[in-house]
Amino acid sequence: MGDIDVALEDGCPTEPAVRTIAMPADTNPAGDIFGGWLMAQMDLAAGNAATRRARGRCATVAVDGMVFHRPVFVGDEVSLYASIESVGRTSMKIHVEAWRRSRNDEDRFKVTEALFTFVAIDEHGRPRAIPTE
Amino acid sequence: MGDIDVALEDGCPTEPAVRTIAMPADTNPAGDIFGGWLMAQMDLAAGNAATRRARGRCATVAVDGMVFHRPVFVGDEVSLYASIESVGRTSMKIHVEAWRRSRNDEDRFKVTEALFTFVAIDEHGRPRAIPTE
Amino acid sequence: MGDIDVALEDGCPTEPAVRTIAMPADTNPAGDIFGGWLMAQMDLAAGNAATRRARGRCATVAVDGMVFHRPVFVGDEVSLYASIESVGRTSMKIHVEAWRRSRNDEDRFKVTEALFTFVAIDEHGRPRAIPTE
Amino acid sequence: MGDIDVALEDGCPTEPAVRTIAMPADTNPAGDIFGGWLMAQMDLAAGNAATRRARGRCATVAVDGMVFHRPVFVGDEVSLYASIESVGRTSMKIHVEAWRRSRNDEDRFKVTEALFTFVAIDEHGRPRAIPTE
Amino acid sequence: MGDIDVALEDGCPTEPAVRTIAMPADTNPAGDIFGGWLMAQMDLAAGNAATRRARGRCATVAVDGMVFHRPVFVGDEVSLYASIESVGRTSMKIHVEAWRRSRNDEDRFKVTEALFTFVAIDEHGRPRAIPTE
Amino acid sequence: MGDIDVALEDGCPTEPAVRTIAMPADTNPAGDIFGGWLMAQMDLAAGNAATRRARGRCATVAVDGMVFHRPVFVGDEVSLYASIESVGRTSMKIHVEAWRRSRNDEDRFKVTEALFTFVAIDEHGRPRAIPTE
Repeated sequence: MGDIDVALEDGCPTEPAVRTIAMPADTNPAGDIFGGWLMAQMDLAAGNAATRRARGRCATVAVDGMVFHRPVFVGDEVSLYASIESVGRTSMKIHVEAWRRSRNDEDRFKVTEALFTFVAIDEHGRPRAIPTE
Repeated sequence: MGDIDVALEDGCPTEPAVRTIAMPADTNPAGDIFGGWLMAQMDLAAGNAATRRARGRCATVAVDGMVFHRPVFVGDEVSLYASIESVGRTSMKIHVEAWRRSRNDEDRFKVTEALFTFVAIDEHGRPRAIPTE
Repeated sequence: MGDIDVALEDGCPTEPAVRTIAMPADTNPAGDIFGGWLMAQMDLAAGNAATRRARGRCATVAVDGMVFHRPVFVGDEVSLYASIESVGRTSMKIHVEAWRRSRNDEDRFKVTEALFTFVAIDEHGRPRAIPTE
Repeated sequence: MGDIDVALEDGCPTEPAVRTIAMPADTNPAGDIFGGWLMAQMDLAAGNAATRRARGRCATVAVDGMVFHRPVFVGDEVSLYASIESVGRTSMKIHVEAWRRSRNDEDRFKVTEALFTFVAIDEHGRPRAIPTE
Repeated sequence: MGDIDVALEDGCPTEPAVRTIAMPADTNPAGDIFGGWLMAQMDLAAGNAATRRARGRCATVAVDGMVFHRPVFVGDEVSLYASIESVGRTSMKIHVEAWRRSRNDEDRFKVTEALFTFVAIDEHGRPRAIPTE
Repeated sequence: MGDIDVALEDGCPTEPAVRTIAMPADTNPAGDIFGGWLMAQMDLAAGNAATRRARGRCATVAVDGMVFHRPVFVGDEVSLYASIESVGRTSMKIHVEAWRRSRNDEDRFKVTEALFTFVAIDEHGRPRAIPTE
């Protein structure tokens, strides 16, 4: 499995933005983990990175290139890595990868990835400038 | 608001694949409806159309062009429309739109859209041919 | 099955007030869909129709004649149809039917029905007059 | 408040079949506790009494006379009392009352009541005889 | 089973602070009821007793001696008993026991117990004196 | 705040066993994050470390010294660190700390800690030997 641990290499974040355990309540009718649940975790992870960078409230405005490589199973540890790819005046592009690890062993596999666009917003929901770092 | 009810015109499905009420439990920390919840509803809607067309189990393999036009508020009726854009041997492309309607009036607004790719799978999770209609 | 699609005939609403997919998280200890979950969906559907007609906040005051004809299974598309049967000065009677469709085929079956009474209320929770249409 | 603690008198059960705390996740868009959540708790309570009496699996077949007397608020202790009113060969009628108590004081108020009909079912979902006590 | 119904003897509360039905949505990846769910129910029960005694808002500050004696299964009735062991100026110690009963029979078994410490807090989250009884 | 980032020093794990965002659905009636939700996350984190070390199914048998230092707020990033303190023949002691970070800035604060005991179990729920590393 060539893609094991790629997320931990070459500039990618080594700490997850979200890490959770896939539970029976998160399954789809076929018994696998529901894709929509995974999308929601990806959005949480991207939003975590966006809010941290923009030092305040952000909103999802677009998602592109979301690919589901493999299913996630009940009991898996699911880690979401978010890296900010670019920052504009009010918006950011954030690459998110989800990785699964069976709870019983050490192998890790990339399950999804996507490019999220977030915009920093003020208390009225209007775009605001992202502070310089 | 030029986009009111566009979903009900010109070849789009007139019945939603999913329709639900956005509840307080579905909010994000800012008090708006959580984007990840909306993505999950979109995936449910696309999966509903895919499974119906393929007469059996399907899995999400990709999502593209997901755009969030407006926020959804607590109490909104949220309708998800799914139309099958193309059908290949084992996969389908499904366009999904989400529309909100404030519970108190009749105006409806498109809030998100995206293009989902689903693959028909057999009981072992392997791609299977989609039956002809 | 003589009752297929009756909800779509003769004056009943052709669009559902709520439509959702029954998920594993909605099951009862026997593995069927939990009756209480279905009741909650019926209440959402009736409340959707009530709030729309009364152009504002409404509260459930009574439910009668709720009958469960058949079980709902994990993965089913569940459609809730709500039709306003009568409108008084501050209250409405709303007939709700729930229909299931197995995700893999086209047959639809009525699973429950009930008569809900809602009252229109103001911001202090007191009954208010329902506007004329 | 004449109806305080009536549920605890004259033959009614003194122990609740279900008792829980109404949480923010259980609210409707108006911020009160969602009626559908309360119906689901009532169904759980009736099902608890039915299953215990029939010594096995039961299913809800009807609900009548459900009345909502007062709203339930976030933080309330909600107690569901279930008493078996009659037992037939395969079915039972169960009266359920819900009572609220503000967590900060001792007064208790009846919020809803309803008459549930349950049928005892076997592993195939077919009616079975209820054992004699 | 020597410990059946011990909770109902000698000065312990005869009414549960919380009683609920363990549902499929509450399971862990192994299919048993998730320990964390049970801890959350214990905290609800202790908080119910604390808030009632302190006539207002309380917060968990410590938990000791939490022991899991047996697993809980899907469909079990789970009863949480909370008894106030001691009351200081601003804090209380509350003993909580969880008991399971299979829905089909009468035997009851203690599954967990723990000693919770709660502090009474004011609207700003600062400790406040617990009123005398 | 002297305890910022202590979890990341001197031998503690630098990667969280669980990291999530505290959502409005996780609040208690006072609007803060519900203590029981936090306990459940701690149990997930401890279980993640236990299952990984024991290469298979584990069950919580005890929790001691659980202390709540500060509240968690809606929107916080909550990180759970789990370190295995000792390993016996069939059981392990696992120290868990929960840390919060406001989504808008970099400061991190320890909010809870506890010592969990897990036992490795086989498919029948009986204790099994923990493999040597």
